[in-house]
Amino acid sequence: MDRKLMKAYSEIVLSGALKIGNDDVLWLRSEPVHQEFARFLAETAYELGAKYVNVSYEDPAFDRIRIDNTTVDSFLDYVPENRSAMFDSVVREGWRSLALRGPADPDLMEGADSARLARATKASSMARRGFLSAISSNRIPWNVCLAPTRAWAAKVLGSDDNWEKRIWDILIPVLRLDREDPVAAWAEHDALLKRRAEFLNSRRFPGIRFTGPGTDLTVGMLPDRLFNGGSSTSSDGTVFFPNIPTEEIFSTPDMTATRGRVKCTRPVTVYGAQVDGAWFRFENGRVVESGAETNAEVLKQYLATDDGASMLGEVALVGVDSPIYRSGRVFHNILFDENASCHIALGNGYTDCIENGTTMDEEELRQHRCNQSLVHTDFMIGSEEVDVIGIAEDGSETAIITNGEFVI
Amino acid sequence: MDRKLMKAYSEIVLSGALKIGNDDVLWLRSEPVHQEFARFLAETAYELGAKYVNVSYEDPAFDRIRIDNTTVDSFLDYVPENRSAMFDSVVREGWRSLALRGPADPDLMEGADSARLARATKASSMARRGFLSAISSNRIPWNVCLAPTRAWAAKVLGSDDNWEKRIWDILIPVLRLDREDPVAAWAEHDALLKRRAEFLNSRRFPGIRFTGPGTDLTVGMLPDRLFNGGSSTSSDGTVFFPNIPTEEIFSTPDMTATRGRVKCTRPVTVYGAQVDGAWFRFENGRVVESGAETNAEVLKQYLATDDGASMLGEVALVGVDSPIYRSGRVFHNILFDENASCHIALGNGYTDCIENGTTMDEEELRQHRCNQSLVHTDFMIGSEEVDVIGIAEDGSETAIITNGEFVI
Repeated sequence: MDRKLMKAYSEIVLSGALKIGNDDVLWLRSEPVHQEFARFLAETAYELGAKYVNVSYEDPAFDRIRIDNTTVDSFLDYVPENRSAMFDSVVREGWRSLALRGPADPDLMEGADSARLARATKASSMARRGFLSAISSNRIPWNVCLAPTRAWAAKVLGSDDNWEKRIWDILIPVLRLDREDPVAAWAEHDALLKRRAEFLNSRRFPGIRFTGPGTDLTVGMLPDRLFNGGSSTSSDGTVFFPNIPTEEIFSTPDMTATRGRVKCTRPVTVYGAQVDGAWFRFENGRVVESGAETNAEVLKQYLATDDGASMLGEVALVGVDSPIYRSGRVFHNILFDENASCHIALGNGYTDCIENGTTMDEEELRQHRCNQSLVHTDFMIGSEEVDVIGIAEDGSETAIITNGEFVI
Repeated sequence: MDRKLMKAYSEIVLSGALKIGNDDVLWLRSEPVHQEFARFLAETAYELGAKYVNVSYEDPAFDRIRIDNTTVDSFLDYVPENRSAMFDSVVREGWRSLALRGPADPDLMEGADSARLARATKASSMARRGFLSAISSNRIPWNVCLAPTRAWAAKVLGSDDNWEKRIWDILIPVLRLDREDPVAAWAEHDALLKRRAEFLNSRRFPGIRFTGPGTDLTVGMLPDRLFNGGSSTSSDGTVFFPNIPTEEIFSTPDMTATRGRVKCTRPVTVYGAQVDGAWFRFENGRVVESGAETNAEVLKQYLATDDGASMLGEVALVGVDSPIYRSGRVFHNILFDENASCHIALGNGYTDCIENGTTMDEEELRQHRCNQSLVHTDFMIGSEEVDVIGIAEDGSETAIITNGEFVI
């Protein structure tokens, strides 16, 4: 990444998305492969007045090494206390959290023993559950963004010839780095997402129906549900972007009310394995039947993670005006692929999509039919062949997305 | 590093030095540059039955970035609580600690503002003081070993041509990896070091005098002092090697009794900067005059770190039979250079070199004239031109090292 590009990108992330300024402590998580950009981000954060940048390099290769080589299965349930303590302290101390994603090895978990993988992943999620809950209710400003790697780019591009230039030619418009003032462009885009969310919040459709090839799914919604999109506001009043890029408006379904069949339109990474052609059939909010063309076994493991893993925690609408969709690429990275198309997530619900939800405890959330789970994985279900309709209390229908395009 | 070499090296470190076995948790600290060897070590530790390998990649470039770019000097005093908590939990939970040393950039701190550097380093030492004290009293099994990098090797070799082969040609005999059974060779060497320590412990010389070019220094010792060397025993009864390689026998001086002048025989890294030709004059145990050919200012900063930084915490004897000395190289790495020659350390004393010292609190240690400080840095003072003599209570002299060779 050249310095000009790093500068523009770090500005949208640190200033635009995370509003880093005086006295902030930034927690930066990254694979070691992103060392150069991580260093640039740290330098920029200090220039912006940050008090401290705490960098955690995380190398997921150690997870694979552990899954393959541990001599006793039950060791996989162990996560050191100090790992939970680290995550919890970030929330308690009001740090800002930035996760740089983009795997050094996108196929790291291919061929791993799926039971061992699920066991280790579940334990790791358990250890982070305080943090995940804090993130999902925006207690601190947080952001997840992508940094490309050679192996990941090769997967997107089909080869690694001249990968850096080719991948950035795709990423620059998606990140709006080609605009004169990218930070302003994101603010403008935020306003569009907010208008779309407001439309849905003014109607409060109890049903959102997706129809398309292999899909006729009605996601049930409760009247206290809110659609959000773009920027969020943390408990200290900071307006921040959880994701860059972001093209979705999203809400939390009634976990008991979704019904019908849905076919995924993009591959999804589940427990580190690529699942293609997944499909689900829902009854009373729960997946009662599922399948996939690849790694169906991993998908089954996922659905069995806990009680909430087979119910919805999110429904999100994305139009084909998304630059990510328009790029015509599959990014094999959820941060991008979820912003290419409408999606549903199996797993934990967003409490900030429920009126007063961020103040509710687990029992209250259950009463409000907000799904709770250790996991949350997006499954993409949109394309230009998919329509989305809002169904009102009286059964009347309002087109929201037609042939993939927003019509509201 | 080829796999055969990694295998032999990981065996002496994990089995020989740290006795990794069933249910152990290993804390592995490393710069990201050692990723390949760190992964190999993790794999080997799991094969040996480890329960968990917790890897902390630490990139010291972030320290330089902070020192150069922080907008407010006082921010340098800040260390997150969770950093201390991490160090403390390793001791509390009885993990085994392995630090892989070998800098990606050996000159990282050259040219940094020395006041800022000292301030940040002091804060960082403060945050780790519980851990440092636990290490110095062997509460947990720990080891520090070296992994070479291109830039470091270039500094040792004079160029980076064919650096990997050339540096390993030097390191292999030093690490005794050329022996038929390297783990057994280290056990045999341990017995030699123990015999030397025993001789000094049977005599309890109140003075140890070093004479040589620019040096006439008498280090004062108390009768409750012990010389140690080679393996140590942790509080759980594990016999472990804190360092590989190790060639020294060492003890903790009476912090009030050293007198005379001493000239260093090798460069030393102080607060990340290379100090050449350092010299000190001691009165009543304290440095009252000092100088250096390079970075004398950094040396002054170091001596002013705290009250204990200008008094001795260690005296160590190394003969010219040391393979590190025999290699004829300066390694610009304390782990190697301290094992090339006799040395003294300014700063914290080793409590396990005092009878019952590991059970004493700070006040008791002070009464026993054991120096206490946030820092501990070795300064090499031996060579084949230096003699070491034990001076008994009655003034009689016993040669310990003559022309650099042990004669006991």
